[in-house]
Amino acid sequence: MTLLTHIKHNAQYLPAKLAVSDGPVKYGWSEFDTRTRNLAASLASRGVKKGNRVGVLMSNGYAYLEAYYAIPRLGAIIVPLNIRYAPAEFSFAINDSGAVALLVEDTFWPLYEKFAPQLETAQQVAQLVVRYNRPGQPVPEDALDYETLVREGAAETAYQDAEIDEEDVVGLFYTGGTTGRSKGVMLTHKNLTHNALITVIPGQVTSRTVYCHVAPMFHIADAAPAISYTMMGACHTFLPKFDAQKALEIIERERVNHIGLVPTMINLMLQVPTIKDYDLSSLELIFSGGSPTPVEVLRKMRQLLPCKLRQGYGMTESSPTITVLDWEDMLRAMEAPPDSPATRLLGSCGVPGINIEVRLVDSLDREVPVGEIGEVTVKAPNVMKGYWNLPQETATALRNGWLHTGDLAIKDENGYFYIVDRKKDMIISGGENIYSAEVENALYCHPAVLEAAVIGVPDPKWGERVHAVVVLKPGWEATEAEIIARCREFISGYKVPKSVEFVSEMPKSGAGKILKRNLRDKYWQSGLVQVS
Amino acid sequence: MTLLTHIKHNAQYLPAKLAVSDGPVKYGWSEFDTRTRNLAASLASRGVKKGNRVGVLMSNGYAYLEAYYAIPRLGAIIVPLNIRYAPAEFSFAINDSGAVALLVEDTFWPLYEKFAPQLETAQQVAQLVVRYNRPGQPVPEDALDYETLVREGAAETAYQDAEIDEEDVVGLFYTGGTTGRSKGVMLTHKNLTHNALITVIPGQVTSRTVYCHVAPMFHIADAAPAISYTMMGACHTFLPKFDAQKALEIIERERVNHIGLVPTMINLMLQVPTIKDYDLSSLELIFSGGSPTPVEVLRKMRQLLPCKLRQGYGMTESSPTITVLDWEDMLRAMEAPPDSPATRLLGSCGVPGINIEVRLVDSLDREVPVGEIGEVTVKAPNVMKGYWNLPQETATALRNGWLHTGDLAIKDENGYFYIVDRKKDMIISGGENIYSAEVENALYCHPAVLEAAVIGVPDPKWGERVHAVVVLKPGWEATEAEIIARCREFISGYKVPKSVEFVSEMPKSGAGKILKRNLRDKYWQSGLVQVS
Repeated sequence: MTLLTHIKHNAQYLPAKLAVSDGPVKYGWSEFDTRTRNLAASLASRGVKKGNRVGVLMSNGYAYLEAYYAIPRLGAIIVPLNIRYAPAEFSFAINDSGAVALLVEDTFWPLYEKFAPQLETAQQVAQLVVRYNRPGQPVPEDALDYETLVREGAAETAYQDAEIDEEDVVGLFYTGGTTGRSKGVMLTHKNLTHNALITVIPGQVTSRTVYCHVAPMFHIADAAPAISYTMMGACHTFLPKFDAQKALEIIERERVNHIGLVPTMINLMLQVPTIKDYDLSSLELIFSGGSPTPVEVLRKMRQLLPCKLRQGYGMTESSPTITVLDWEDMLRAMEAPPDSPATRLLGSCGVPGINIEVRLVDSLDREVPVGEIGEVTVKAPNVMKGYWNLPQETATALRNGWLHTGDLAIKDENGYFYIVDRKKDMIISGGENIYSAEVENALYCHPAVLEAAVIGVPDPKWGERVHAVVVLKPGWEATEAEIIARCREFISGYKVPKSVEFVSEMPKSGAGKILKRNLRDKYWQSGLVQVS
Repeated sequence: MTLLTHIKHNAQYLPAKLAVSDGPVKYGWSEFDTRTRNLAASLASRGVKKGNRVGVLMSNGYAYLEAYYAIPRLGAIIVPLNIRYAPAEFSFAINDSGAVALLVEDTFWPLYEKFAPQLETAQQVAQLVVRYNRPGQPVPEDALDYETLVREGAAETAYQDAEIDEEDVVGLFYTGGTTGRSKGVMLTHKNLTHNALITVIPGQVTSRTVYCHVAPMFHIADAAPAISYTMMGACHTFLPKFDAQKALEIIERERVNHIGLVPTMINLMLQVPTIKDYDLSSLELIFSGGSPTPVEVLRKMRQLLPCKLRQGYGMTESSPTITVLDWEDMLRAMEAPPDSPATRLLGSCGVPGINIEVRLVDSLDREVPVGEIGEVTVKAPNVMKGYWNLPQETATALRNGWLHTGDLAIKDENGYFYIVDRKKDMIISGGENIYSAEVENALYCHPAVLEAAVIGVPDPKWGERVHAVVVLKPGWEATEAEIIARCREFISGYKVPKSVEFVSEMPKSGAGKILKRNLRDKYWQSGLVQVS
């Protein structure tokens, strides 16, 4: 019912069972309970109270896992910070959440010093800054050291965990802000526990499973498994950040069974020339998200890795599970004759998870027929409580009791979902809906195109017209006319870009997604494109 | 989030996958969806409305499974009736719930006719009586036939399922009334869904699993798997009622993987002389409850059955999971030297299920230390909403946010629970707590004793004194003094019965439990023993 239930359960029933294996740091669930209790007690003794927010700026490791449990133990709220933020994005998230404390890994100290002047210290923001470093690399002597905090907490004998309700917020997960200002998504114990329950069932996770944190732990894509694998008493291993060869090494060394990766990471691992030298026989399951895995990657995976793949579609607002495509479905699609309808399943994000309802709706919230495009809406116990301090945005996102994802999708006659585009990225030109993703796919067919983004810009006749922004591959050349001509081979005339703009680099969010709103800004006074 | 989510999901994604295999009746999840929709539509067209109660008096079969889903589809509340009730108990449950409709299997028609005159028809109770019979055995022509209802529902094209919230009540499950009047336990979609989630995880249930309903479907012990196996899209098979040989036959014929049984049923199956002639290789898991499985039964099971056993402790009020003892634990205990402490695990009901908190408390709700006896209290999303129309009893049972089970237990240093007695069956004599179960175990050591029940009766000096009620085995004889002497060999003097009463049969509840309150009635004016 709450995350604390799980760690108490593990401490009682799996006390010596390995909880963490992070290089030299190895300990069981009893120790995990003690360490998170002591950290919580130490933070509490330094003034952190129930309901306070605590920012975390760390790379993957045991201390991050501890933070996910120690902070909720005292009823405080964790604010995991994207390590790729720009300084202004850090100060925004910290100020917006009103964090009273920060845990900062030493690596990120220079970064912290850059954004520290922007923190609203007058409002008691980030008065308590804890520095952490990996074992053997101590932090400066004058700093408040993480391990010292953990040690000192043992003396706080009067400390008691807060009384927690399943509706209490565990964390504020700031969105990438691809379509507006970054928002703090409030995920509760109920949200995260339900997501954990429905993911461990098909994953057949047990206390004997070894999970490797490779995706960044600040992101819900890895925060969610941090919780689900803990629920089952599994063992956590960590890569501080992704590196294809190191990922293969850790699978062999730690006998990793389950791992979460994005398709690009899978591809990079398969490209490592020495992959066959590693013993990867422990690997049972890769789960993946973000985008469908290209079929060439899947085929190579079948040759080189002994495991299943499950790919899902989700978002921070749903903690994150929405739909999942099973390995059996992917195998079926791969074994179908090329160009047969069965192969299209490889572009699907699958079917709703257990206890999750998904409906595609029009602008009046009416369900659209099979095969037609509608906005993905979701009803499930893992749908967020709301956006932090944004009641209006919350009411809009959760209207009529359904999460409106802003993603456009099609459902086929068998109930499989296919994501088409972000709703805000759809262009309406002369009354026709144009999906930017489809146009971008056409642009990528030109060999000189490295990155492409398609937006709608104002047009006196058509309302909007299709405009492409392109980054060329280094050393390549192409003209506007050549690129437009190439697109014409793949998509209908009204979808073809009317203009192409060449840029040297794309504006991107901390998570690496292209910020289309920044591209649109110079064409639209309001900075917002009105669609439907 | 609601039971309807599961059957909609199955209809969409597993439409042709076998849902039901009940003799000649075999159909998939699409058909299950259609049939339950049509039954719901037919009931709605005959006046059953959201929130109405519908009684069900049937033995195990596909129609019962349909009732569990059709009735909630229209937002009505199912009232499963214990088929072993006496007529007065039937009319009590139907009148208390105010059921407007009844589904009655033809076998039980004579019984129905007995209690029908006691129904409060003036208050619109049971105005609609539907008769069901098994395929090939039609109901009388003037009756409202179940299959006709299902057929006619197809014409109700305007019918729409009710809007359901997870806090809505699915069913009223009447308790056996062993310690007072029978109470209608309100279990919600949230309660039953959460119980389903936490049981399918360790059970590793998938859509390929075949489950056999052997325990009676009116009882939560089998209603809960009806829901959890449906959630996973598994196949349901049925024995109308338990018969050891028929259970072996159905396992072989239907390739059953999972089955729920009480220890007595397991023992009876193991006693079938021809057990080795059956192909039972499909069997993976037996789950069991009610009481610990005797070690001789476990040993025999290991020889004759290829499967694991999980035994649990639960109750209707918790939908029902509270604790579970794993097969691995049982194996460990069985392999320990006889009389070593490790063997005592076989008397344990295990550890709390996922997301379930269990605390043993004293009469002031303070947690008792390890090794001491306390009342089992439970906090979990599967704890009932309350008792139907009994706000005072509900407030008492759920005080301070914890379900007070009325069961007394010990927790050992490893966190395993051992049920000691019902709190209301505990006797306080001269300030000493005496657990009736312990005294009864001593009584069973006398070879002439068939059944034994121990109660406290008024005593001017000691407050209460220990009194035994005994049924002797046919053809055996024993005196009060002989029985008391035998007890003295096993338990301390203050626990030994001061008096023994011989009876020819015990008063029992519909579920076969001895009704100690009836035994006590003649000794206590109020009919209630006051303890602590």
